[in-house]
Amino acid sequence: MTNYDEALKELKKQLLAMAGHAETAVLRAMRAVTERDLGLAQKIDADDCIIDQFEIHIDESAIHLLTMAPLASDLRLITVAMRISQNLERVGDEAGCIARRAFELGASPELKTDIAIPHMATLALDMLHGALSAFIGRNPAGAREVIPRDDEVDRLNGEVHRELSNLMIQDPGTITRCLALMAVSRSLERVADHATNIAEDVVYLYEGRDIRHSQSKIE
Amino acid sequence: MTNYDEALKELKKQLLAMAGHAETAVLRAMRAVTERDLGLAQKIDADDCIIDQFEIHIDESAIHLLTMAPLASDLRLITVAMRISQNLERVGDEAGCIARRAFELGASPELKTDIAIPHMATLALDMLHGALSAFIGRNPAGAREVIPRDDEVDRLNGEVHRELSNLMIQDPGTITRCLALMAVSRSLERVADHATNIAEDVVYLYEGRDIRHSQSKIE
Repeated sequence: MTNYDEALKELKKQLLAMAGHAETAVLRAMRAVTERDLGLAQKIDADDCIIDQFEIHIDESAIHLLTMAPLASDLRLITVAMRISQNLERVGDEAGCIARRAFELGASPELKTDIAIPHMATLALDMLHGALSAFIGRNPAGAREVIPRDDEVDRLNGEVHRELSNLMIQDPGTITRCLALMAVSRSLERVADHATNIAEDVVYLYEGRDIRHSQSKIE
Repeated sequence: MTNYDEALKELKKQLLAMAGHAETAVLRAMRAVTERDLGLAQKIDADDCIIDQFEIHIDESAIHLLTMAPLASDLRLITVAMRISQNLERVGDEAGCIARRAFELGASPELKTDIAIPHMATLALDMLHGALSAFIGRNPAGAREVIPRDDEVDRLNGEVHRELSNLMIQDPGTITRCLALMAVSRSLERVADHATNIAEDVVYLYEGRDIRHSQSKIE
């Protein structure tokens, strides 16, 4: 195995570790909301610092790898890795947004609703996991399965938005709390968007070869 | 001038053209909101298609350029160009979000408020313009000036959010319209975030050389 192969393997390992931190951050932030656990919400900032460090480190490694990449298809792989890292960094930011809402919600009486927010969190995190697995496993078919699932998360976000709007109109005393829950729902919708971006990049990476075969002269 | 230099110049030209479309889309969407001009709001979808095409084209050109880049510093320039293109694509998405809210707001009686949304739009677009000019003009000092201006946009977004929350509480009949205006404000805040991302990348590109000088062995 060459230096280049080793470095590429290390890059993928870093991305997986980064993804683990991003997932944990979202899970913790959601538990902070649903279990009103503000101690957990405070830990998200530390998670976010780690995720930001990963992004910087992965960018550096990727630039270094680009100088050694033997083939045009490798350039594509490395630039996709940089894009995945950016998307994961933004997932970390969304976890931070959710945690801030957990503080707001935790400071007010609990709002008992039956809205789909926890279900959205499960779906969004499953999508993220699926997209990353497809990247690591070189599985474009797996990535393709992730993409349409974004529609369900969008639909649920719309449903949550409508339900909370109605609740606000019926009982204006709940407005502040409903706004905070809408923000949580929107953050989860965005986590699903990032998972979709990653999945699309994986399809492009592993299926794009044929489409762009006319460029093979530059390899 | 070599082929490589020509191609790099072309990439920058494409980015500037893309930025022009992204700016126009935000301007149009804002005018659709403030002037209740739904014909204008309908044009944003067409703008967005053009912007998406630019992103695909710039990605292709960048990958091609990476295969020819003579120096590690060029790799950095090209990957930064790809990141700028991604940020501009998202600015286009935000214009689309604002346009959708213009339809909602246009279908209801006008809500007379004195909120800072048009001012936010001016600030965010100025930041975008400043960040792009700094990239093209190789001016990291100009990029540094853009970054702190994000705080003012964040502050205004917070102010708008509070004012609209209060208005909703005082007059629940305005809830739906206030939610739409909050979404517009949030989209503008995000346009400013994308401008900040671009400015940070420009600083990294033109000032990072010294910091990463220890890597010059890989050139």
